[in-house]
Amino acid sequence: MCLAFKKHIDKFTQLDNASFEVVMSFFEVTKVQKKEHLLRSGTVCQYQYFVVDGCLRKYFIKENGLEQTTEFALENWWISDTFAFERHESSSFNIQAVEAATVLRISYTQREALVLEHPCMEHYFRMVYQRAYAAAERRIAYLYEWSREELYLHFVSQYPEFVQRIPQYLLASFLGFTPEYLSEIRNKHRS
Amino acid sequence: MCLAFKKHIDKFTQLDNASFEVVMSFFEVTKVQKKEHLLRSGTVCQYQYFVVDGCLRKYFIKENGLEQTTEFALENWWISDTFAFERHESSSFNIQAVEAATVLRISYTQREALVLEHPCMEHYFRMVYQRAYAAAERRIAYLYEWSREELYLHFVSQYPEFVQRIPQYLLASFLGFTPEYLSEIRNKHRS
Repeated sequence: MCLAFKKHIDKFTQLDNASFEVVMSFFEVTKVQKKEHLLRSGTVCQYQYFVVDGCLRKYFIKENGLEQTTEFALENWWISDTFAFERHESSSFNIQAVEAATVLRISYTQREALVLEHPCMEHYFRMVYQRAYAAAERRIAYLYEWSREELYLHFVSQYPEFVQRIPQYLLASFLGFTPEYLSEIRNKHRS
Repeated sequence: MCLAFKKHIDKFTQLDNASFEVVMSFFEVTKVQKKEHLLRSGTVCQYQYFVVDGCLRKYFIKENGLEQTTEFALENWWISDTFAFERHESSSFNIQAVEAATVLRISYTQREALVLEHPCMEHYFRMVYQRAYAAAERRIAYLYEWSREELYLHFVSQYPEFVQRIPQYLLASFLGFTPEYLSEIRNKHRS
């Protein structure tokens, strides 16, 4: 199970097996059932999560009472409420398992200790945030430019497996659609 | 002029004056006139910019031919097209001076050399991206949740100086308004 994480680290930095074992000692392995919550809004965001297998989502409750999914995390993705995680503050987001999942979790204090002891992990986390921010910059531009139908078609072409895998009502929420509208677009592009 | 950058680094890490001089040698100081471009879409994004004084904006051209501003950078902000910067690729964004500005610029190759030589700068850039990503996570949630009027009111309460400082047509573009709609909202909340 740790192999996936080792491989992800190896994309950005060099870590021999002995050092990796030490790095792993900063993490806890957690298993979650489908629909179980790892973070509830109104509680302190204590952890950052790396998905080893399964799928998580982040959502908040809108003023109209509906859930708004803002992020998914499949294998090899990190997920947290970064702002609340850094400040040890309560979050306005929820993180929930879409599928049963195995995750690695680390607290902010532990992560700061880890990067002090292993500077290559400072580089790793810089690259993780750099890529996440680069993706967010593009996503913000898409939200300005594209119609909801174009957002859906982009998503399908970029992440075809993902679209197959996650429940359609969650995909609809993520894209800001009603499930009915998503079904309409899907039928249109199927025919 | 370097004092502002030194102060920004000091927020996240420790750097004595002698080391700071070495760090500065990785950067070039550039002055830009109002409306001058630092990056044109279709050209390689070579630099990341730190604003010492003045104001920059990032925008792209929408399919309808209009400019869409997606980001501003005032003093102590970093700006680039992170995705294209890392990959030495051509960008679909433009970066332009809203006011005459003094900026520090660094290439990706130079930045990688800098963080290798000065690990505390690896920590600095991790924190810069961590905060930028945290802000983007919140911004994405706001774009789902809030009406355009609420986005404007949030912006006014969070960044009152900024709203005074930048031209209204650019603020309107950033918020996804027409200038006429912005003027209408401003009048409504003034009375």
